[in-house]
Amino acid sequence: MLGEFDLIHRYFTKETDNKSVSLSVGDDCALIDCNERGYLAITTDTLNEGIHYFKGEDPYTLGYKSLLVNVSDLASMGAKPEYFTLSLTLKEAAEDFLKAFADGMFTLADELDMTLIGGNTSKGSADSFSIEAMGYVAKDRAMLRANARDGDLICVTGTLGAPALFVESGYGKIALNDSQRLIAHNKAMLMPNRCAFACELSEFVRCAIDISDGLMGDLKHICDRSNLAACIDVDTLPVDPLIKSVEKTREYGLNLALFGGGDYELLFTVDKKYADDLKALSAKHNVQVSIIGKMIKGTDIVLKDGESMFNGSGRAFEHF
Amino acid sequence: MLGEFDLIHRYFTKETDNKSVSLSVGDDCALIDCNERGYLAITTDTLNEGIHYFKGEDPYTLGYKSLLVNVSDLASMGAKPEYFTLSLTLKEAAEDFLKAFADGMFTLADELDMTLIGGNTSKGSADSFSIEAMGYVAKDRAMLRANARDGDLICVTGTLGAPALFVESGYGKIALNDSQRLIAHNKAMLMPNRCAFACELSEFVRCAIDISDGLMGDLKHICDRSNLAACIDVDTLPVDPLIKSVEKTREYGLNLALFGGGDYELLFTVDKKYADDLKALSAKHNVQVSIIGKMIKGTDIVLKDGESMFNGSGRAFEHF
Repeated sequence: MLGEFDLIHRYFTKETDNKSVSLSVGDDCALIDCNERGYLAITTDTLNEGIHYFKGEDPYTLGYKSLLVNVSDLASMGAKPEYFTLSLTLKEAAEDFLKAFADGMFTLADELDMTLIGGNTSKGSADSFSIEAMGYVAKDRAMLRANARDGDLICVTGTLGAPALFVESGYGKIALNDSQRLIAHNKAMLMPNRCAFACELSEFVRCAIDISDGLMGDLKHICDRSNLAACIDVDTLPVDPLIKSVEKTREYGLNLALFGGGDYELLFTVDKKYADDLKALSAKHNVQVSIIGKMIKGTDIVLKDGESMFNGSGRAFEHF
Repeated sequence: MLGEFDLIHRYFTKETDNKSVSLSVGDDCALIDCNERGYLAITTDTLNEGIHYFKGEDPYTLGYKSLLVNVSDLASMGAKPEYFTLSLTLKEAAEDFLKAFADGMFTLADELDMTLIGGNTSKGSADSFSIEAMGYVAKDRAMLRANARDGDLICVTGTLGAPALFVESGYGKIALNDSQRLIAHNKAMLMPNRCAFACELSEFVRCAIDISDGLMGDLKHICDRSNLAACIDVDTLPVDPLIKSVEKTREYGLNLALFGGGDYELLFTVDKKYADDLKALSAKHNVQVSIIGKMIKGTDIVLKDGESMFNGSGRAFEHF
């Protein structure tokens, strides 16, 4: 199967002469110019059974995560969530399922004061949950993939790798006990949103993305768009402590953190003169922030381990 | 399975205190207040394999229709199409399929000068195409289901019933020859859009809906929202001529036209003082318009056949 980005680029990227479209296909959100209200940021994302979640997942969790993955895109642009629509495809419309799904979805929507403005439901041969989310961002505060600067610090919120661990355990590649499995599940499906933090972060940060495809893949998007390279110090990666309690090898945890994906944490770059502002914001929102490297001239991502340097363009971290 | 409207109402309708949401769940589009730009009308609709189209349908047609069903909702609000996003779920990403799908989708998008602003592609166990479309309408020109007035003429564009005939043939309920099948297919899948007509129609029409669920079902939405009833003169229904060439009984054609659905024609109500304007607009856009009845006081839809009157609340037209 062609990769998502190849697909998008090859068949679905077209030039537009519509001047109100300030940013189109290729960032976390599109940006529509709404004059004095700023930009309306628009994103859409889908959860499919068997691909984005395991069969049998509880519907509350699915409702929550269907919306979370979309607000994560809004957060990465610095946009304040406002509205969303829902397209629900279901094998059958069991009332218990719908009630719990709506509960999960509105739990997050209410927390963010978002309004469900429309949608559709239909029958299908596989369950699929597609949400489109919208929010506003001031024109000078949108955080774009293309805005990283040479010398910027590379930062990430939270911890990394637990969602990938959950997927590994679902496929039987690693054994978790019940309590580990519950923790991994919740980190993979019920993660916190970073919206409030991101909206303030955009005061001094111009470049961000959310980690859905894995730290390395998403950092590569920033590098490509910003025409820069990046150097990551692997010792500074916030590998989730759960992973260390399950599997002791250092390489295992680093691989999940670098390539696992599904973290829905914010990856951003910031001028080092704002290091203190960042520390204060992290404390204010109680959001862990790790400085994991910096943007440099070049084209590839370099992984630094002590005094050793490795090219990070591979698909796994097997050099250690 | 609960009906779509029951579902939406029971679990997905919530009050909002967001003052920019001028119209939420329950019309063809949501309306977001964009100050001097008017309302941003937003709609979303999905095509699922085996439900909204037959397996083996060609991808050009799927691309075209995925967008068409959404712009039909914009047209029914009087909104000029501007932007759309695409969520593509595919069993496999065959390049031929994607190329043809994009061709079909952009054929319509280019005709309407719409911009694809974002989307996502993912793997799934069944193909599903979900589009969200957006467009602007001046605040005093939105055509709402709730705006019908007692005495308004009820009008419909185009002809009715051919898409339902195509579905009947797909299920083997009626036999079509090759040429009939091609005509029915194109009327069911590649119907024209009514956007340009609708944008001008909104100069003197305040109430419209598009026919997706069948004339009777969609007219019922207008009646319910406007607290009125309707009287339809069945002899004035624009039953598609293809149906008469296939099956001679009058009842068969009337049933498809009244209950079939999938027509994506505009159903609207208009003060009779605008009859001449309507005739001129119909001629200007070369869009057939039939006056099929009028809005009356009451709660039910009455079907009039010559001197006989029938309650139209049944699920089929079996009285003739």
